[in-house]
Amino acid sequence: MKQKLKIIKIGGNVINNKEALSSFLSDFSTIKELKILVHGGGKRATEMISNLGLKPKMVNGRRVTDKDALEIVTMVYAGLLNKNITAQLQKNNCNAIGLSGADANTILAHKRIVKDVDYGFAGDVDAVNSDVIKILVENNLTPVFCAITHDKNGQLLNTNADTIAAELAKGMSKYFEVELIYCFEKLGVLADVNNEATLIEKIDFISLSSLKKANIITEGMLPKIDNCFDALQNGVKKVIIGKPKVIIDENLKRTTLTL
Amino acid sequence: MKQKLKIIKIGGNVINNKEALSSFLSDFSTIKELKILVHGGGKRATEMISNLGLKPKMVNGRRVTDKDALEIVTMVYAGLLNKNITAQLQKNNCNAIGLSGADANTILAHKRIVKDVDYGFAGDVDAVNSDVIKILVENNLTPVFCAITHDKNGQLLNTNADTIAAELAKGMSKYFEVELIYCFEKLGVLADVNNEATLIEKIDFISLSSLKKANIITEGMLPKIDNCFDALQNGVKKVIIGKPKVIIDENLKRTTLTL
Repeated sequence: MKQKLKIIKIGGNVINNKEALSSFLSDFSTIKELKILVHGGGKRATEMISNLGLKPKMVNGRRVTDKDALEIVTMVYAGLLNKNITAQLQKNNCNAIGLSGADANTILAHKRIVKDVDYGFAGDVDAVNSDVIKILVENNLTPVFCAITHDKNGQLLNTNADTIAAELAKGMSKYFEVELIYCFEKLGVLADVNNEATLIEKIDFISLSSLKKANIITEGMLPKIDNCFDALQNGVKKVIIGKPKVIIDENLKRTTLTL
Repeated sequence: MKQKLKIIKIGGNVINNKEALSSFLSDFSTIKELKILVHGGGKRATEMISNLGLKPKMVNGRRVTDKDALEIVTMVYAGLLNKNITAQLQKNNCNAIGLSGADANTILAHKRIVKDVDYGFAGDVDAVNSDVIKILVENNLTPVFCAITHDKNGQLLNTNADTIAAELAKGMSKYFEVELIYCFEKLGVLADVNNEATLIEKIDFISLSSLKKANIITEGMLPKIDNCFDALQNGVKKVIIGKPKVIIDENLKRTTLTL
């Protein structure tokens, strides 16, 4: 039987709040199973771009990563955030090792092909090097991934953290029974985003299509859910979407996705 | 017999020049032995401090690392420089893994005790976790260390890169036959800093004291040399000071330090 591995992704709602981050990292450190953390960037990169007198470039609500923006996200994600998270986990006796996809060639990507929009140095993931990540986790190290990858040709790339978490989960399923957990600000997938009472506790492949047909899973959530089912179809055992406390509180409501 | 391990430190003269860095990393990648790279910060951190409208604080020619400066060196050293160096090494098929001292708890330090001057978040190294670094190098990974350490209490610390290289060399001597190589802009230790013909090719413990007495090893070089002999007295086999090409060119003149 495969050993269990939890892959947990946190986003801006945790990263942007010092107390929330500290509390989350404390909870995370108590997880007994093998684990990997993936963190997004939060608002610090955007702040840094402004502080340097530059303007964040957005198209259709997505960041365009030009050369300057790539330098800044590399500094903020792989430097400031990743190393502070790692140091805090070390304080909690969690033997964290902060990584970008370039480190140990863990995550290979390519610069997004230009169709209608040129997103600049945005990376789409090609491969996860699960063999080397396996060596790290089996030596009791806890990888902490920021959302920076590389193309093996010397180019760093800014990559969506949700996608990194899903790709890591798929890749690591080769060796482990992987549970993928997305932590965000809501209880889970809500039929009405403003009403937590409308939480959809379970979604499987059959209910997914009816939820889509009934327009209950809406635009913002759709790519996230599609990512989750892609992960499930590629070996991931279970996907959970919920609040950060879901990682330690078994009784906290959540959305569980299975095939 | 212990396996050989080369620990190579590069500073500003390589870091600040794109072509010099690219050429160095290409040479470094061809080294067959196990190896570790340690890099300094160069001028990018100082530039970034200015670009953000802050003023670099210096006392006696040394940086005072206040809270803002620490954030910036963490971004620039551990983020921008470390990840770009790692990505370039990956391009050269060197399986680099970029690390700070917080990652895998590799380098423990404490905030420098305030005597006459408060250097802020400057770290003095207490311990190198050679066991975990051994696991990495024995799995064909090449650690690339930036000059950021931690105190195991959640605090990152700005640490002298020469010292990090020496401490790593001492720590790794437990398991490996370590050669420590400092690359800088001169041929090696020069009796007259402006004349490369005055290169001192060999320094041992006996000649060191006469060089000191004769004031040939002067103020700027003294702490570096003392670091080297401290390393030699703690198990390091050989220390080399020379130009970056010294890592691949056996015929290039250099200073070799032995006990």
